[in-house]
Amino acid sequence: MSVYTPVSEAQLSDWLRNYSVGRLAGFEPIKAGIENTNYFVTTAQGRYVLTLFERLPAQELPFYLDLMAHLARHGIPCPAPIADLSDRYLQSLNGKPAALVTRLPGKSIDRPGAAECGELGMLLGRMHLAGRSYGAYLENPRGPKWWRLAAQEIRPFLEKSQYDFLESEILFQSQHRFPDLPRGPVHADLFRDNALFEGGRISGVIDFYFAGVDCLLYDVAVCANDWCLVEPQSDLRLEEARTRALLEGCEAVRPFDALERDAWPVLLRAAALRFWLSRLHDFHLPRPGMLVHAHDPEQFRRILEARIAGKAPWTQ
Amino acid sequence: MSVYTPVSEAQLSDWLRNYSVGRLAGFEPIKAGIENTNYFVTTAQGRYVLTLFERLPAQELPFYLDLMAHLARHGIPCPAPIADLSDRYLQSLNGKPAALVTRLPGKSIDRPGAAECGELGMLLGRMHLAGRSYGAYLENPRGPKWWRLAAQEIRPFLEKSQYDFLESEILFQSQHRFPDLPRGPVHADLFRDNALFEGGRISGVIDFYFAGVDCLLYDVAVCANDWCLVEPQSDLRLEEARTRALLEGCEAVRPFDALERDAWPVLLRAAALRFWLSRLHDFHLPRPGMLVHAHDPEQFRRILEARIAGKAPWTQ
Repeated sequence: MSVYTPVSEAQLSDWLRNYSVGRLAGFEPIKAGIENTNYFVTTAQGRYVLTLFERLPAQELPFYLDLMAHLARHGIPCPAPIADLSDRYLQSLNGKPAALVTRLPGKSIDRPGAAECGELGMLLGRMHLAGRSYGAYLENPRGPKWWRLAAQEIRPFLEKSQYDFLESEILFQSQHRFPDLPRGPVHADLFRDNALFEGGRISGVIDFYFAGVDCLLYDVAVCANDWCLVEPQSDLRLEEARTRALLEGCEAVRPFDALERDAWPVLLRAAALRFWLSRLHDFHLPRPGMLVHAHDPEQFRRILEARIAGKAPWTQ
Repeated sequence: MSVYTPVSEAQLSDWLRNYSVGRLAGFEPIKAGIENTNYFVTTAQGRYVLTLFERLPAQELPFYLDLMAHLARHGIPCPAPIADLSDRYLQSLNGKPAALVTRLPGKSIDRPGAAECGELGMLLGRMHLAGRSYGAYLENPRGPKWWRLAAQEIRPFLEKSQYDFLESEILFQSQHRFPDLPRGPVHADLFRDNALFEGGRISGVIDFYFAGVDCLLYDVAVCANDWCLVEPQSDLRLEEARTRALLEGCEAVRPFDALERDAWPVLLRAAALRFWLSRLHDFHLPRPGMLVHAHDPEQFRRILEARIAGKAPWTQ
């Protein structure tokens, strides 16, 4: 489980005096997630999540917290940071940067159908529209610059054929950039476990700590590569019904333009590349003290191959 | 019922395109309240309240909306304004200034006991602490300046003995101001119908449109005069158990200072005076088109008399 920095009841109880959320009623560590230390916290007022940031540079944290606050006040069901009595979202606890955010209801779903993919699409559309008035800028921290850096770092661990494949895809992507696509803040990691459902509707979008500014459609491509697989264990093609529902949901809120239609197959490959790379990196170069087993990088290599080989539904 | 400005489904559906809250699913007018036009609004995302402002000067609305946003992001369960796609809380609809805010769960209670008064006290304490970092300033719009103005306006309608009583209390209050009491944004109208309870806890504090900056303890006095009456229909003294619970709840979060203890009986009178005056004013000088019968002013005259005559529990 992912508690890098333990917090005692006395420490937490004392720390909560910085806030207007009432007295501590209970707390427990959250086991999922590999990046930060997280606790569920219940007070006299409500249910919250406490995050102690273990990885992100402190200067980047305001981008994430302010983005979540921005989206929440636009009606997007994302965790809303709670401001402390000095009106700051970012505090510190046990020597780590720390923040308290609202805890959202609902549960993630393992096997979404077309209806859930349609809900996700509409949520993405709304989130992207709401994000456009967000003023801060942080380049997608897992974008092309990072791909090149990460590829060099993991090169010693890869067989030549694998490295060549990686390099050829990075080259392909560099020849197919889309500077004129609609851009804005994107979640960039909205896998099934980062969306909560309740009564068939999305009740929460969580874990914004890979967000950054990129093509809005890239966010959709990241989702397609996780939500729309024919069979996540074996057949990594995109199922047409779910993929169409995802895209149509998006489009019902924010119509796509012609450039986006053209870019779709390339962005699906970019989204596959990004997660293949980060999983290779976590696998071969785990951070010290990393407590959760890294995901198998192979799945995303195979997803990338499937996107190169297969037509994406939209293009048919 | 209080719908001064009707809104059609087509108008609302169209207007909601300015927001990221999903499609309109249903709406209905809210009958309570005499100041503004309010609708419950349900969208694909959630439940909201739409308010069309009928009375307040447009330049004062940002104070209220920003205060609610401020308190909400500090964890106070108050309506959170939803920002539109241009990132503004204040829109317009059918020629009126309009805002969309979150709808809170819970129900108001008619006959609170000591436990509910204690909850209210803690909520006030937390709200007052959270409000201290709020930057905007609006003097309590129903404070001493308004008392004098309103008294002159209603003078022609009052018998001499009643007017003399009013004048003598305004004079008494002017001789007992407390410039050194802790001040900040106060709700100033937190009657029983403006607090929602769920499972014994306060799940919502609503209707901030009489808020302003004043002594924090004045907010508590307004509450005492409504929540702590021995018997609202007949015996208007403060019941000791509920009044103590209210004060102790407050004090558990924000300890009172000695000045506040001294000021308590005077502030109870000030709070009674303010509502006696506004009810006299609404009764004798109703605004054109006012659709709800004014409250009986007599009750607050009698509350004022009871506060002048009786010792407040705190002072015993």
